Amino acid sequence: MDLLFLGTSAGMPSKLRNVTGLALIEDQGKGWYLVDCGEATQHQLLHTPLSMHGLKAIFITHIHGDHCYGLPGLLASAAMQGRTEPLTIVAPRGVHEWLEATRGLVELYTPYGLDYIVTDSLDELVIDDMHITAHALEHRVPSWAYRFSQHAPKSLDKDKLEADGIPRGPIWGLLQQGLDAELDGRPVLAEQYRIERFPPTVMVIGGDNARPELLAAACHNAHVLVHEATYTTEVSARVGEEYGHSDALRVARFAEQVGLPNLILTHFSARYKPAGYPSPSMDDIRQEAEAVYSGQLFLAEDFARFRVGPDGSLHRV
Amino acid sequence: MDLLFLGTSAGMPSKLRNVTGLALIEDQGKGWYLVDCGEATQHQLLHTPLSMHGLKAIFITHIHGDHCYGLPGLLASAAMQGRTEPLTIVAPRGVHEWLEATRGLVELYTPYGLDYIVTDSLDELVIDDMHITAHALEHRVPSWAYRFSQHAPKSLDKDKLEADGIPRGPIWGLLQQGLDAELDGRPVLAEQYRIERFPPTVMVIGGDNARPELLAAACHNAHVLVHEATYTTEVSARVGEEYGHSDALRVARFAEQVGLPNLILTHFSARYKPAGYPSPSMDDIRQEAEAVYSGQLFLAEDFARFRVGPDGSLHRV
Repeated sequence: MDLLFLGTSAGMPSKLRNVTGLALIEDQGKGWYLVDCGEATQHQLLHTPLSMHGLKAIFITHIHGDHCYGLPGLLASAAMQGRTEPLTIVAPRGVHEWLEATRGLVELYTPYGLDYIVTDSLDELVIDDMHITAHALEHRVPSWAYRFSQHAPKSLDKDKLEADGIPRGPIWGLLQQGLDAELDGRPVLAEQYRIERFPPTVMVIGGDNARPELLAAACHNAHVLVHEATYTTEVSARVGEEYGHSDALRVARFAEQVGLPNLILTHFSARYKPAGYPSPSMDDIRQEAEAVYSGQLFLAEDFARFRVGPDGSLHRV
Repeated sequence: MDLLFLGTSAGMPSKLRNVTGLALIEDQGKGWYLVDCGEATQHQLLHTPLSMHGLKAIFITHIHGDHCYGLPGLLASAAMQGRTEPLTIVAPRGVHEWLEATRGLVELYTPYGLDYIVTDSLDELVIDDMHITAHALEHRVPSWAYRFSQHAPKSLDKDKLEADGIPRGPIWGLLQQGLDAELDGRPVLAEQYRIERFPPTVMVIGGDNARPELLAAACHNAHVLVHEATYTTEVSARVGEEYGHSDALRVARFAEQVGLPNLILTHFSARYKPAGYPSPSMDDIRQEAEAVYSGQLFLAEDFARFRVGPDGSLHRV
């Protein structure tokens, strides 16, 4: 599974960073998921290998423009590119209504179906081997994190098969495919003989959020957390809590407390210049997080791509 | 007056061309007008000297997404940049309602006022020295051209003043400022003694349109026409008339018939590669137009900037 950042700026685009968008890309095939869709996400995609035909679902964390204003254009372009597969959109209340208003008032045309799921009502969404849940955050408007848990293919539990006296042959073949079989008139259930040899790969992708600790449960066994760090503590104290954002220290402390192995910070205020420039710069964000976090830390950049290995390790590719 | 192209692609953005947006920039000061606002127009503006504080009005030609989906993000960013001046938006029915739906459903925040004018009801809009009228086109949805007529500053008609026996002095000073005066108890009206020494500079900016001849009246005395040429005739014949677009030949023929001195073609289908590439390329569009048009022809590119001189001449800067 790869994470490809399409936008890493807070509020407004800058020359170097677009507003929020993140692609989760499957190892095999062309399937991918989009989390948030700020304006010009479709433009960013032009510079990636991703196609609108491979997009399996869109997840919106909250209704602020820098996280969803790219939806109408992206959906329209998917239509012009010939998409016919229905598309699932998981989003807080308001997004569905806005897209339908857009359709009615300014001619959004989507010949493919749109399946809307309101985030508030999401229990668990399963798409192929991906299990997705939503976790409430704290922001000026309802905001959510999405937890993506990718399950590895199951394989036969040969020890148990042999212990139970199930002979090798056609029965093993059926069970391997997940199909139930029969032996001497007794049912042999696939689910009892197939096991996950590897734990699922778990990635938690947060929306705007002032309280990282709300993600404690979601981050259980997670390999990666992607979280906003709009400010450093100094700026955070100056602008006050009214904007509902996190600073780098707050997120890093949380990640350390729950023992997260990998943390990717994103959604930076445009006041932070690139690393190497005089303060305020990305160096300030990094130093603040590194001071309290002992895991692997990355600061996201547009088009930075990270790979989560089958062992849950993370590296930039 | 300068024309600065922010997007020159039809329907979808490409790596080289954004969807439609065009800035008309005043010679003096920081004032400018925006015609159409496709997605990521605000991103394009980051690469120009234009500021959201100098934007005097927005004109939308029609409700298709590639001409208006950039509005919510642009308006939101203007707010974040501290704009407080009210902003006039001239647009066909639907745009006003869509922006207000956006405000209500996905949190568009504009602390400055928005003054909406429905294009259908536009008689003549006068902003400072600019007079703007709208002209109906033919497309799949109601589409309009905007005619920008910039009036040169008026100066005193000295011959007439002297012939009428109005003495030099304070009276001339008042008249020069456009104020009425009095001489021996008789009113001396400024409008009778101020003349435009230069004809207005006239630029006609079309929206999507299948019938350029609808612009015959609007193009009277115009110095520049900016018009879509989505296709060449060959492609136009293949895709059929249902899309409501023009080909280069059709537009160029019209420009020749009405004696337009300058024609800028734009809004090109992404199938046309840059000039110099094998057909279909921009060379095909150019050749088709040049074959029938004897005026000055330009094919627009993103960030191409053209200057209309006080004599109505046009050159690229």
